Amino acid sequence: MNAPEFTLTAGPTMASDRVRAALGSPVLFDYDPVFLERFNDLERKLGVLLHTEKDVVLMQGEAVLGLEAVARGLTTRGTKWLNLVSGVYASWFGDDLRALGAEVVTYEVPFDEALDPEQVRRLLAEHPDVERVSLVHSETPSGIENPLREIGEVVHAHGALLVADVVSAFGGCEVRVDDWHVDLCVAGPQKCLAGPPGMSLVVVGPRAWAAMEANPDAPRGSFLSLLDWKTRWVDSDRTAFLFTPSVSDVNGVAAAVDELIDSGGIDAAIARHELAGRATRAGVKALGLELWAKDERYAANCVTAVRCPEGVTTAQVLAHVREHYGVMLSKGYGVLATRLFRLGHMGPAARSLYPLVAVTALGQGLADLGVEVDVGAGAAAVAATISAGRAAVVS
Amino acid sequence: MNAPEFTLTAGPTMASDRVRAALGSPVLFDYDPVFLERFNDLERKLGVLLHTEKDVVLMQGEAVLGLEAVARGLTTRGTKWLNLVSGVYASWFGDDLRALGAEVVTYEVPFDEALDPEQVRRLLAEHPDVERVSLVHSETPSGIENPLREIGEVVHAHGALLVADVVSAFGGCEVRVDDWHVDLCVAGPQKCLAGPPGMSLVVVGPRAWAAMEANPDAPRGSFLSLLDWKTRWVDSDRTAFLFTPSVSDVNGVAAAVDELIDSGGIDAAIARHELAGRATRAGVKALGLELWAKDERYAANCVTAVRCPEGVTTAQVLAHVREHYGVMLSKGYGVLATRLFRLGHMGPAARSLYPLVAVTALGQGLADLGVEVDVGAGAAAVAATISAGRAAVVS
Amino acid sequence: MNAPEFTLTAGPTMASDRVRAALGSPVLFDYDPVFLERFNDLERKLGVLLHTEKDVVLMQGEAVLGLEAVARGLTTRGTKWLNLVSGVYASWFGDDLRALGAEVVTYEVPFDEALDPEQVRRLLAEHPDVERVSLVHSETPSGIENPLREIGEVVHAHGALLVADVVSAFGGCEVRVDDWHVDLCVAGPQKCLAGPPGMSLVVVGPRAWAAMEANPDAPRGSFLSLLDWKTRWVDSDRTAFLFTPSVSDVNGVAAAVDELIDSGGIDAAIARHELAGRATRAGVKALGLELWAKDERYAANCVTAVRCPEGVTTAQVLAHVREHYGVMLSKGYGVLATRLFRLGHMGPAARSLYPLVAVTALGQGLADLGVEVDVGAGAAAVAATISAGRAAVVS
Amino acid sequence: MNAPEFTLTAGPTMASDRVRAALGSPVLFDYDPVFLERFNDLERKLGVLLHTEKDVVLMQGEAVLGLEAVARGLTTRGTKWLNLVSGVYASWFGDDLRALGAEVVTYEVPFDEALDPEQVRRLLAEHPDVERVSLVHSETPSGIENPLREIGEVVHAHGALLVADVVSAFGGCEVRVDDWHVDLCVAGPQKCLAGPPGMSLVVVGPRAWAAMEANPDAPRGSFLSLLDWKTRWVDSDRTAFLFTPSVSDVNGVAAAVDELIDSGGIDAAIARHELAGRATRAGVKALGLELWAKDERYAANCVTAVRCPEGVTTAQVLAHVREHYGVMLSKGYGVLATRLFRLGHMGPAARSLYPLVAVTALGQGLADLGVEVDVGAGAAAVAATISAGRAAVVS
Repeated sequence: MNAPEFTLTAGPTMASDRVRAALGSPVLFDYDPVFLERFNDLERKLGVLLHTEKDVVLMQGEAVLGLEAVARGLTTRGTKWLNLVSGVYASWFGDDLRALGAEVVTYEVPFDEALDPEQVRRLLAEHPDVERVSLVHSETPSGIENPLREIGEVVHAHGALLVADVVSAFGGCEVRVDDWHVDLCVAGPQKCLAGPPGMSLVVVGPRAWAAMEANPDAPRGSFLSLLDWKTRWVDSDRTAFLFTPSVSDVNGVAAAVDELIDSGGIDAAIARHELAGRATRAGVKALGLELWAKDERYAANCVTAVRCPEGVTTAQVLAHVREHYGVMLSKGYGVLATRLFRLGHMGPAARSLYPLVAVTALGQGLADLGVEVDVGAGAAAVAATISAGRAAVVS
Repeated sequence: MNAPEFTLTAGPTMASDRVRAALGSPVLFDYDPVFLERFNDLERKLGVLLHTEKDVVLMQGEAVLGLEAVARGLTTRGTKWLNLVSGVYASWFGDDLRALGAEVVTYEVPFDEALDPEQVRRLLAEHPDVERVSLVHSETPSGIENPLREIGEVVHAHGALLVADVVSAFGGCEVRVDDWHVDLCVAGPQKCLAGPPGMSLVVVGPRAWAAMEANPDAPRGSFLSLLDWKTRWVDSDRTAFLFTPSVSDVNGVAAAVDELIDSGGIDAAIARHELAGRATRAGVKALGLELWAKDERYAANCVTAVRCPEGVTTAQVLAHVREHYGVMLSKGYGVLATRLFRLGHMGPAARSLYPLVAVTALGQGLADLGVEVDVGAGAAAVAATISAGRAAVVS
Repeated sequence: MNAPEFTLTAGPTMASDRVRAALGSPVLFDYDPVFLERFNDLERKLGVLLHTEKDVVLMQGEAVLGLEAVARGLTTRGTKWLNLVSGVYASWFGDDLRALGAEVVTYEVPFDEALDPEQVRRLLAEHPDVERVSLVHSETPSGIENPLREIGEVVHAHGALLVADVVSAFGGCEVRVDDWHVDLCVAGPQKCLAGPPGMSLVVVGPRAWAAMEANPDAPRGSFLSLLDWKTRWVDSDRTAFLFTPSVSDVNGVAAAVDELIDSGGIDAAIARHELAGRATRAGVKALGLELWAKDERYAANCVTAVRCPEGVTTAQVLAHVREHYGVMLSKGYGVLATRLFRLGHMGPAARSLYPLVAVTALGQGLADLGVEVDVGAGAAAVAATISAGRAAVVS
Repeated sequence: MNAPEFTLTAGPTMASDRVRAALGSPVLFDYDPVFLERFNDLERKLGVLLHTEKDVVLMQGEAVLGLEAVARGLTTRGTKWLNLVSGVYASWFGDDLRALGAEVVTYEVPFDEALDPEQVRRLLAEHPDVERVSLVHSETPSGIENPLREIGEVVHAHGALLVADVVSAFGGCEVRVDDWHVDLCVAGPQKCLAGPPGMSLVVVGPRAWAAMEANPDAPRGSFLSLLDWKTRWVDSDRTAFLFTPSVSDVNGVAAAVDELIDSGGIDAAIARHELAGRATRAGVKALGLELWAKDERYAANCVTAVRCPEGVTTAQVLAHVREHYGVMLSKGYGVLATRLFRLGHMGPAARSLYPLVAVTALGQGLADLGVEVDVGAGAAAVAATISAGRAAVVS
């Protein structure tokens, strides 16, 4: 089988030419001065993009590694968490916390809705001894974005530590770590940043460090240890690696960050993702399909989730679209695998007419398999939305 | 300005990942055994793809170089040519012949029509002393494909040398050099083959060599000399270059040829281009625009020419589409520059949903500028045509 | 500062052109059929290269991750290990075991010597209740290679599980997992294979799986869990990833494996590394420097460790060589950091005249800083050794 | 056969990583605004590097194309040239002039010597009606550099047009077009600039344009026509290409120029080449071999020519070195093919320890074939020379 012509999935998303050139650049020794400077530089720039002066730690291993490190670092038997759940990832994070012995208060909404900050306030009032609050900013499995800013205010007022999974939010929607009182967050390079997968970009603030230091069960001397990074990297001069970093991934992520900066910066990147999301949703609706998100106000900028219509399966449709049109889309994830399609519009896929390709491929694929959709209306809606949005930007 | 996301022009067309990797591979010394073998190998494979056992010569310089070499090689004062004209390039070739002192009989049809083999037969009967017949197989400037096979029969019956410009035909429509009695042709790597521009892939048969050898004015000791290649390369052991070949271009073209072979071979490539052309034309018509070709039977597989509607200029539309949608299309060329758009569907752009991008970008761009088009109908027609064509191939 | 011209370190080592092209190839969705096939294919080929039919697991994270996963998977409080130590890494592994509550019997030799299988036999006789035996096949920090085959026989006779760190041995010296009775080993892609760093290539046999399954403390539901791979990948149909794999690293490692296979296979690769090691040692001695290894019979094929002479520091010499000659070498590691230089000859650096560059750069650098060395003799010895070795291969 | 590890030839020389990334970047449409700007930008920067405000024309086709265009552009029957010959290329240029009907006065020195400006002055005095003077600045086939500056003064005083082949001089030794009164020169991208081969970088001043315009035989309407560039590009707004440029070659050359500028500029580049030449010559002499240049004062910076000793042939030695050591070197060219070896030190090969590799590979190769050389002395001399030269630069 040939490689796909278009990768428009929920991530890893296709990399830009600049990122690919960086990935294919020479593999340097990790202590080569050029590489060391690139690594330190990347830490600094990530802090700027995330609007934070907290410490940035580049862990090796994709987000599940970073999130496990966080869960273990902040949990001992009986630690009381409020876990806010509006999707698969948050639900799993709660499972992990419980497995570690945490006492977990759960606030869960249906996976096609967003969290309500007022409910968070109410729950914190009910449970004043909650020590940490966790949420997923943008739930990639269902394309739902939660109001991190407002929840941040609420948690800050209460005083608990705020832990946010911003894996797929970073680069595609606003994330202001310091202003929003986020104590610890994990971002991913392979979503809206469109770098290679394989790293966890972790931000840790002083309160989170203190909580870990006070936690006897926080990993130490382990690949899962954030504290090791604290003592041997952050508090040192950031020149002695804990282990060999994944050089080419770092090269790729650094290039993705530089490209984002050179393409108008973080705000322009967010605007691109917002428009791509809007255009994709317009297209999906015009096809005659149903968005997963109950309300578009909390539909994510990174990926659009679409309910799978009757009469076909998600697996069947994706295989057909891949084989006939060379377009790779995603289905849902976890419990949602059979219920929805996901059209990614991250990184390069948030530019130009990529949303048109995603919407039309899905629409024509469904039509091929007997579902009644209006391919033309879908395509026209995407194009018209992009046109209007671009006009606002360009002129 | 950012680089475009989509290059869907009349060529150079975008290169595949494999071709790009080859272009970026190490620049070897031209006499390195690995490079020399690659060069010889490329000559052999091109012969196979063009269905010929004639000599293949890889000239450095894009098609105008190859065509000038051919014109000069076969012309002395008074040489009688029948030049068959259905487009800009053939017209210019006639000018070149006249500038060289040739006596040129011209058979010209409007540039939105194809040549008629019967007229060729009639003209050869009228001018039995015609020594060479020239035509352009596929006129890229206007997207018209001529019946080379039938004309080949006619010319063969007459006995004149047949010279064909197959620059943009090669790789996208059938070219059977030997069966069709073509004595000399020039193919291009940067069109349907989707290699880098910068070379002329020239096939020369024994009758053409003889004619050049008999021509006192044929270039010798010149960059324009095919005879130099004959004496110093073809008749030698093909190991002593006349000058330094453009190593990375050769690497790129060799990779393009290998990829074509590995993707189902020449017939599959032609089928892809045929389908892409059909889908693009369906889309253009459904947009409500007018194809340039009077009859789709001779619309080219490589590029679709579209009449520019009233109220806009081609330059204005292309700049808008490039700026707003990151899509690069072509306008017409030469005398047709202001009269038509050209949507390229060559190489990678003949795959997947690239025609959808081209048609929708043009349609939305025109709509933005006030032209009444039906973007949805255009997109739907492209998708439906590809769907039907793919279904035929896959199942 | 410019990038170095030569990276001749203890790893990561420079990647070949083919590996770099693969690293720079498109980042595919991990469930794209092309990627999934590439991943499965890589598992199979690694098994072939390691001469094993045991399960291959591709963990994300460089060797420290794989080794921690192994230590935790096979240890509960009181598990009795015999840890064989001839270098820094084995020593650290013992620390990790003790931190996990293992009872560790240590057999340690000076770090410039290799392990003696007879001593292992004696210790196992003394400690018949030892359950696992661990060793590092090739100690990269000091360039010492241990007799894994012979130790394997001894451990097999005893019946304990044999765990081997073959990180830098793989690809550069013989590793026959099944014949040598290795139950579990961790190989690295960034050493002799010359792929990108960031993965642990883990082989697990049935006895090792059983031991982990019987271990209540073996990680489960964790990034560190080999058992998760067992239940959710190996025993499944190897199609549902535990988390997003590092796509471009996998691409790079797959290309490195393919290149090794296409370059004469694993035996030819070993021969290249053996010759490069021999040539480097000849050069170092001819310079007038002292090898770290007390006896060349156990000097490693991957890297040559050289004692730092009086009057200079390793850091000073390496910085000078990097700045003046664009050559990146390594110093020692851990407790050996200030005591030795390491010249890497892995992957591409085991080919051609790279050892000449390493030896001469070190020699001239030392000379520049006032150490008396014979640069010419060093260079000549390298060249002569390669000449003799190549003559044996080529003719 | 594997690709070579080192390409240290007389050119094409190996390309840097940055150039290779540019060669492998997307193939843009030639009228894409990004490409057009890159093309114009390249013209401007080349002018700066060549210290000229004259017009820069980027012809497609390697130097023989540019030189033929120059010869034809400036010659009609009876045009009187003084051709200065110190090597193969100048000799061939004279042949070309004579074939075009020029009256050629030749001043020839043995090919292992440089031209003497005083002799030029004398000849011009003898032949006051000479209209054009031609020379090769740096004779790549024999590694001889001529005193262009001094000859420029002499020709300027006389008033003839000065035409210089600076193909392999550009980027490796000083070329000040305007200060030195050069009216027309042709530079190459594939020598010291280390870009891809396939272009002629031509500088044309007003007197040269005027001479061409006055020449009825100057090519017009031809691939060989500089005048076409004048009328349709230079005098136009430099936006309408005469034909499709070789996009990826232009990308590569532009990157090479940018890299040169970012690496300290043209003077630093010249210093690198000068040092590499000096080191190579020291090494060759210490091997016990004889330099081709009678006097090192005029040995070229780009390539070092070495007399082939008795008992071996150049072809045999080069094949042996390529096969055994993976190093590609050059033999002589034209009449010198069997008489000398050429070790290239251009572009990346002028950096770091590449001269060490070239000298040692040649030395060991000769030793393998029975020639008595002192490999160690050769290597030591290279390293010591680079050491001394680098010390001067760094400190």
